[in-house]
Amino acid sequence: MIIALTTDFGYQDSFVGIMKGVIAGINPQARVIDITHGIPPQDILAGALTLRHSVKYFPPGTIHVAVVDPGVGSARRPLLLECEGNYFIGPDNGVLSLAVENIRSAQIVQLSNPTYHLYPTSTTFHGRDIFASAAAHLSLGIPVSAFGEPGEKIVRLSMPGVVRKERSIEGEIVYIDKFGNLFTNIGEHDLSGQPMETLDIVIGSVWVRGVSQNYARAQEGEFVAVLNSWGLLEIAVYKDNAHKRTGAKIGDKVEVILTR
Amino acid sequence: MIIALTTDFGYQDSFVGIMKGVIAGINPQARVIDITHGIPPQDILAGALTLRHSVKYFPPGTIHVAVVDPGVGSARRPLLLECEGNYFIGPDNGVLSLAVENIRSAQIVQLSNPTYHLYPTSTTFHGRDIFASAAAHLSLGIPVSAFGEPGEKIVRLSMPGVVRKERSIEGEIVYIDKFGNLFTNIGEHDLSGQPMETLDIVIGSVWVRGVSQNYARAQEGEFVAVLNSWGLLEIAVYKDNAHKRTGAKIGDKVEVILTR
Amino acid sequence: MIIALTTDFGYQDSFVGIMKGVIAGINPQARVIDITHGIPPQDILAGALTLRHSVKYFPPGTIHVAVVDPGVGSARRPLLLECEGNYFIGPDNGVLSLAVENIRSAQIVQLSNPTYHLYPTSTTFHGRDIFASAAAHLSLGIPVSAFGEPGEKIVRLSMPGVVRKERSIEGEIVYIDKFGNLFTNIGEHDLSGQPMETLDIVIGSVWVRGVSQNYARAQEGEFVAVLNSWGLLEIAVYKDNAHKRTGAKIGDKVEVILTR
Repeated sequence: MIIALTTDFGYQDSFVGIMKGVIAGINPQARVIDITHGIPPQDILAGALTLRHSVKYFPPGTIHVAVVDPGVGSARRPLLLECEGNYFIGPDNGVLSLAVENIRSAQIVQLSNPTYHLYPTSTTFHGRDIFASAAAHLSLGIPVSAFGEPGEKIVRLSMPGVVRKERSIEGEIVYIDKFGNLFTNIGEHDLSGQPMETLDIVIGSVWVRGVSQNYARAQEGEFVAVLNSWGLLEIAVYKDNAHKRTGAKIGDKVEVILTR
Repeated sequence: MIIALTTDFGYQDSFVGIMKGVIAGINPQARVIDITHGIPPQDILAGALTLRHSVKYFPPGTIHVAVVDPGVGSARRPLLLECEGNYFIGPDNGVLSLAVENIRSAQIVQLSNPTYHLYPTSTTFHGRDIFASAAAHLSLGIPVSAFGEPGEKIVRLSMPGVVRKERSIEGEIVYIDKFGNLFTNIGEHDLSGQPMETLDIVIGSVWVRGVSQNYARAQEGEFVAVLNSWGLLEIAVYKDNAHKRTGAKIGDKVEVILTR
Repeated sequence: MIIALTTDFGYQDSFVGIMKGVIAGINPQARVIDITHGIPPQDILAGALTLRHSVKYFPPGTIHVAVVDPGVGSARRPLLLECEGNYFIGPDNGVLSLAVENIRSAQIVQLSNPTYHLYPTSTTFHGRDIFASAAAHLSLGIPVSAFGEPGEKIVRLSMPGVVRKERSIEGEIVYIDKFGNLFTNIGEHDLSGQPMETLDIVIGSVWVRGVSQNYARAQEGEFVAVLNSWGLLEIAVYKDNAHKRTGAKIGDKVEVILTR
């Protein structure tokens, strides 16, 4: 059974290592895979997008633990969801919501059963005391319903929408990766039916002609637009950093001009 | 058998990967867990504190390898300790000392037996040539005493003390995590018997009223004090970075005022 | 079977985690070890040097996947090499070339067989869709020749040469690690026969007397030269950062003066 971790705990401290120690103590056979611990601190949207676009590359039955949790210890509920054969554990603040699109088909449970908490239970590190512990117990075969009371709803993040006009499509930057590539919310399906080379992309004062097959279609240092590995329209600079070159940030508008 | 790694080798270079290659070559069954490799370069105290607060979350029998080792290759001894059912491997510079509080009950061995070193043995990377090799051999069941001559003492770090006055408790910042949370040396037991909401915490020009249950008790951007997951008094800013906000550094004084 | 990963994908995003998910889906028994994902973005030389100096510390039969791939999706070929009992998977841009010195003894295959690609195959993330998938299938025992057409040559990086003069040896900085240690291209064998203490090392305005046994031979804050764990001459500062102190960069000249 795979337990996959997505957090903003970073790589400086022992938070993630301790979660793995807890898991190994409860289920020595569990396999842990790090999706990433580099989510920007407290950036729930980045965590939710990262999880959403990772799930389908993991085997069925994977237990996803996502912890981006500024409200740890407060009234926000700790959750366990089962949806389409996968499991999702984390705080009920939206971080799980983009990965579980079909929430009606999901089984929702609050992690309220103290049997599966660590003691003493801290109020600042539920990643260790509630989420890692729940994931490890779940990987042992304990049924979902044993972890607590059933829930009906979860907090959902609202993804910014794409606006389709007659001669253009308007979206925005939703994620920036470590190469400085700018991910938009404009997906492949938003562009379907359009010849890729006829689409111009405008962000701030940058105008990119056509959506290219790959980064290397541009000259070194030139802007290039691609459909990226998340299936999203992305603005990059070949062998350089579009984030630094543009100063763009999450939420900045991006326009796709249908030139034909 | 779990081998848990705590180092300042970081994530840019191949140092840690090579240690894992060495371990896999000696004992393919060994399971390696990274506690962290993000200890600030050569910061022995940060390494020692990280290790101390991680050990109890790992299964009994875990082999802890801690390498923060500016004196690598010099006269400082490489050590193996067995203490209360766990194992500790690293340089004798204090990095192991806070995790092994009850040193009298520990078996101490110098890693002087060349059988368990890699050849050629570098003078700059004992993490690879001595510590990883020792951990992997130990995980195969080779007895502690086989690794070298017994020792009697280890180098101990002195943790700064907490000063208790009539109407206040004085401590200092001992660790700063990647969220910028300021960890003090003032522990739960130092505050026991005090109603948490009556304690004021002063650091520099910042005055925090009460020790809260969790970060979210503060407004966004406000300072908040909590007892954190290491059992220590911590000063944080809800959804922000107390380190950046205060400019505080390791060793800065913190005062707890007993208002009642 | 070990799959060892060396990439410039970093630790912020889900790229590496997704590769591990793909591998676990194809071969749940495969063991993945991270050499590092901290190669500077698109720095093929740093990736190639890191791989070259890591291979011998991994068990025979290890499958090395190295992805530093600015040309992803373009005409550059995806490769699988078998050489001296180890396997190397990555783009044909030089990143594999320093690890495979004896290329004439290598079996070279292009990863052209679509059976072992993921679908849909992105043009921006072959790490996921081609390289991780190939590594996982190879770890299942699928023969090298099944992955595609045989190749004859690979793109080779040219390492800068060392110039030997009558009273000196000239080389250059080829790698800088996270401690700020400056790795030169001058190897142990270039210095063999020379008494180490009689060699002076000059970089910019810094003059270091002698090659020392270890860092701690210098005073704190002093420059020191050592033969490092890669077998290369290295300039460091004891308990400080030579990179920051000198401002040196890759390609800067280093001179070894034979004083005797």
